[in-house]
Amino acid sequence: MVGLSRSAATVRRAKQRGAIDAGTTDARDAVRDADLVILAGPVDTIAPAGKRLARWMKPGSVLTDVGSTKSEIVAALETSLPRGPRGICYIGSHPIAGSEQRGIDAASAGLFAGASCLLTPTARTHPKALRAATQLWQRLGMRVSRMTPDAHDRLLGATSHLPHLIAFCLASSADPSRLGMPKSWLEMTRLAKSDPDLWDDIFLSNRAAVGKAADRLTGQIRTLRQAIVRGDRAAIVKFLRHAKAIRDAIRD
Amino acid sequence: MVGLSRSAATVRRAKQRGAIDAGTTDARDAVRDADLVILAGPVDTIAPAGKRLARWMKPGSVLTDVGSTKSEIVAALETSLPRGPRGICYIGSHPIAGSEQRGIDAASAGLFAGASCLLTPTARTHPKALRAATQLWQRLGMRVSRMTPDAHDRLLGATSHLPHLIAFCLASSADPSRLGMPKSWLEMTRLAKSDPDLWDDIFLSNRAAVGKAADRLTGQIRTLRQAIVRGDRAAIVKFLRHAKAIRDAIRD
Repeated sequence: MVGLSRSAATVRRAKQRGAIDAGTTDARDAVRDADLVILAGPVDTIAPAGKRLARWMKPGSVLTDVGSTKSEIVAALETSLPRGPRGICYIGSHPIAGSEQRGIDAASAGLFAGASCLLTPTARTHPKALRAATQLWQRLGMRVSRMTPDAHDRLLGATSHLPHLIAFCLASSADPSRLGMPKSWLEMTRLAKSDPDLWDDIFLSNRAAVGKAADRLTGQIRTLRQAIVRGDRAAIVKFLRHAKAIRDAIRD
Repeated sequence: MVGLSRSAATVRRAKQRGAIDAGTTDARDAVRDADLVILAGPVDTIAPAGKRLARWMKPGSVLTDVGSTKSEIVAALETSLPRGPRGICYIGSHPIAGSEQRGIDAASAGLFAGASCLLTPTARTHPKALRAATQLWQRLGMRVSRMTPDAHDRLLGATSHLPHLIAFCLASSADPSRLGMPKSWLEMTRLAKSDPDLWDDIFLSNRAAVGKAADRLTGQIRTLRQAIVRGDRAAIVKFLRHAKAIRDAIRD
């Protein structure tokens, strides 16, 4: 396992922590003997990094990435990577694990165990890439599922990007008093501690799905708000019970 | 410490758990020797219960409640309790602690330690009530603050009722797939596991503030959504940084 970073300090720290066997800041050194290359970084840097690294990768080696959005990245890499018998075998991955923290010091050995990983093969995906990525994530203890890049982006728009958007909005609309905030507010805004420079890219690379998810949520807020303001107890109880039934049916 | 419940099973369980010294299902027995009576229950039951219990309370004894909204309860009790030298000394309390769980089995001895308690005295509040309530909550390890019932309801509308409303809306707008949901979604919808029969009352007894808080949030969602959809990176980054700065400044 060879780590590549632009920062020598990050490489050193990753070795100290046992996250990598060896590390380098030289991209060519990092990838030229690799059977499998994993791209990790802000979503708008992934396709450019993949195109650059592919120049030095072995023919027939596998490339994947861990970006939180897939349609843009998959389209960009599928149209630009070398193809054919001497080409690079690319597939998009999204291991759904992480936290609002960032950097090598937030690394955690058990991060992936038990979590889901979505793979986004297309008609252009080489079977070798699908096999290699499936094995990789399964060995880390993940449940692997497959879907199209677009289906992935719609699903994550509703289940991950929207919750982050809401947390940022709730935090930004707060009038922080000197009193301690209730646990409910702290929990519902924790995601607003996430890195703005990662999240602007995620939102931008999944605009349509995030916009639609936000509209659906705004519609729900309007419905419940109106029932409250007009004092319609039956409508409120029905709404809350329906929401609770959905939530209670989903395992934490 | 005498516990009163309509359910004999709850009284037994509370004694078993050490939550009370003695217990009864007879309201008159429970309160006739009490120096201080604490009302706990769904917010729409608190004022009626207080009026009923006051008939049997000692003149000059103190009454408080732990309802999550204050304006309606305080107004209802202040206009109906016996006043004057032989009256009952009432003050509203809101110890901000708890969980989405309910019932005696969810009781926790350390629940209040380190949390905030808001008292809502008015011009009609007897100093004795303010003193007794302050001492009570401080002895349980709480930081005690005072504000008007209306200020309390505006503050809690924005910092507790709105987060709950959002969690219910986010859960209800979900299309639960068979895949595991991301941690961010699970966290942002945990509050939707709360009891609908408690929360319809809380929302209804704080309609105006909840409606305004929901409108403010909807405005923020619209702003961020539009920046995303039109691809305005500068506006998105500015919004996210502002939200993160507010959140980072508040201790968990």
